[in-house]
Amino acid sequence: MINNFGSALPEFVGTTVLDTIGLVIPGIDSSLREEMKLPAHISALGLLSSRTGAAGQICAIDEAIKNTNTEIVSIELPRDTKGWGGHGNYIVIGGHDVSDCRRAIEIALELTERNAGEVYISAAGHLEFAYSASASHAINKAFDIPLGKAFGFMAGSPAAIGLVMADSAMKSSSIKLTKYLTPTTTSHSNEVIIAFYGDTEACKTAVLRGREIGLTLLRTLGDDEPCGPSKPYLT
Amino acid sequence: MINNFGSALPEFVGTTVLDTIGLVIPGIDSSLREEMKLPAHISALGLLSSRTGAAGQICAIDEAIKNTNTEIVSIELPRDTKGWGGHGNYIVIGGHDVSDCRRAIEIALELTERNAGEVYISAAGHLEFAYSASASHAINKAFDIPLGKAFGFMAGSPAAIGLVMADSAMKSSSIKLTKYLTPTTTSHSNEVIIAFYGDTEACKTAVLRGREIGLTLLRTLGDDEPCGPSKPYLT
Amino acid sequence: MINNFGSALPEFVGTTVLDTIGLVIPGIDSSLREEMKLPAHISALGLLSSRTGAAGQICAIDEAIKNTNTEIVSIELPRDTKGWGGHGNYIVIGGHDVSDCRRAIEIALELTERNAGEVYISAAGHLEFAYSASASHAINKAFDIPLGKAFGFMAGSPAAIGLVMADSAMKSSSIKLTKYLTPTTTSHSNEVIIAFYGDTEACKTAVLRGREIGLTLLRTLGDDEPCGPSKPYLT
Repeated sequence: MINNFGSALPEFVGTTVLDTIGLVIPGIDSSLREEMKLPAHISALGLLSSRTGAAGQICAIDEAIKNTNTEIVSIELPRDTKGWGGHGNYIVIGGHDVSDCRRAIEIALELTERNAGEVYISAAGHLEFAYSASASHAINKAFDIPLGKAFGFMAGSPAAIGLVMADSAMKSSSIKLTKYLTPTTTSHSNEVIIAFYGDTEACKTAVLRGREIGLTLLRTLGDDEPCGPSKPYLT
Repeated sequence: MINNFGSALPEFVGTTVLDTIGLVIPGIDSSLREEMKLPAHISALGLLSSRTGAAGQICAIDEAIKNTNTEIVSIELPRDTKGWGGHGNYIVIGGHDVSDCRRAIEIALELTERNAGEVYISAAGHLEFAYSASASHAINKAFDIPLGKAFGFMAGSPAAIGLVMADSAMKSSSIKLTKYLTPTTTSHSNEVIIAFYGDTEACKTAVLRGREIGLTLLRTLGDDEPCGPSKPYLT
Repeated sequence: MINNFGSALPEFVGTTVLDTIGLVIPGIDSSLREEMKLPAHISALGLLSSRTGAAGQICAIDEAIKNTNTEIVSIELPRDTKGWGGHGNYIVIGGHDVSDCRRAIEIALELTERNAGEVYISAAGHLEFAYSASASHAINKAFDIPLGKAFGFMAGSPAAIGLVMADSAMKSSSIKLTKYLTPTTTSHSNEVIIAFYGDTEACKTAVLRGREIGLTLLRTLGDDEPCGPSKPYLT
């Protein structure tokens, strides 16, 4: 359900949940190209950017570049989430043809909507989960996951919830940790975050275990049920 | 329309839109003076500080110090905007006489209200624009604009909107880029920001072009019209 | 009034105001232990974490470790406050027995509720104050206060309010400054913060003077009375 109304701009691709916008730039201005240190073979850009969420959009871009002739330029995680304690995202991809970039961003918008099912927000805090059966270049760049490996991710806020989730997940399954992030090593977010790889079953088991504990703990902080803009998809 | 009620403190100057407060300190405590590394010739301070906005307040201070016997001490940009994806500001000026500082902060409060007309906020994101026909010391310090040159600024959030604005602006006009900022080079804000200089017409053309594109794109993210606390003033 | 409902998890201790959760981890996973660089003698962890507030929770933990056989592992201050311009907190303590950690976190949750009486939030900004008659290891680690000394703390947002508070406090009393923090030296918060030590009366006088000025200034920014979730306790 990507919203396409309202824009006749050639740069516009679409919008979706979590205040996510997808855009393309056919041939970027030369001063900006220099500032962005773009390699010579990249002539068109695709942009994905949200106020809320990080891993879901990175996984969406990961699939998008697998399926198109495009590559990652940069992945940045601002301190955002619209007043909550986590990140937004700003992802730039590049390609030779703007049609490739546009197709990639279309795919990424569709998958961002699906992946948003694993963002859970309550009045007190938030949780985010992600899983991929096979990491490609975006997941590799963002989380140091070896290419082709199954990948899992979890973030919990307030941060202490994230550490208990991480501990339970690591104990539940044989997985290899690649990222352990706390407020001083993120963009000052109020989260503990882990990323890991392993067998597909091990990664999924760990994510589901973290989700179970995380939801239980986040529920103790208030009366409202943590929920997101889409349907949970990990089972 | 500066609100002066409620304070009989000698430090109080006034308040205005965007949760902006203006204050003076006649003779700062010696331990704080040392921490702030104030030069010996500065005996009084003027303070301007807002929850939302950056370039508009910097331009306001720029005019204020042009018109008074004061100078810039420091310009800091916290990650704020009251739950949105950008910055607030904390600006300190200094002078020999507290009356100079007070007058400068009065001017800055008046101009902050006017400049707030180029802050546009929707439920999804925000935009900020600024223009000055002749940069002085505040704009020079914050954005590396040569003294006396015409100056333009734009910020867009979510960040991808900012890059398309920047690209359109740079292509529309012959201007020279001095700052290109993304989440990792700001205070982790969810913005792309550019600052530039050139002929007055070129700078204004670029700002207006960025504003046109930015508003079109921000409108695609929701039903509410992006708007600010004052009337847009750039035409 | 710690909320204990809803969790049968062995890790759960309780929750309190300011979206604060208290947790324990009896024996942390070995990969996480390595990432956290835990010394060998620590076998159990206690966690305290809030969306809003910093000094109050640090003082709560300071008392908690005085009264239990536990020690500070880490104190991190994310950029949070649920859309306001300050910090949240993420504090990890360690001990040999999980029962010591649990007791320490119980004490910290109780004192967090009390200390929250010195957090003042309005629609425009916020203030936080803290005082301890005798600093222990948490206050020492966070604010460089010598062990056993009386300690005072104040933070004001928007930041300019914090500087006027700091100046008035420093002038009101004979105290020694140990921390002077502004947006670039915090987690990009919109605050000026000071921490100091001295005689008990001097520290309390300084905190009360800062609070008086801070409340007067914050009130000029709006019609609503700055208030927090608990009763002010400093007199």
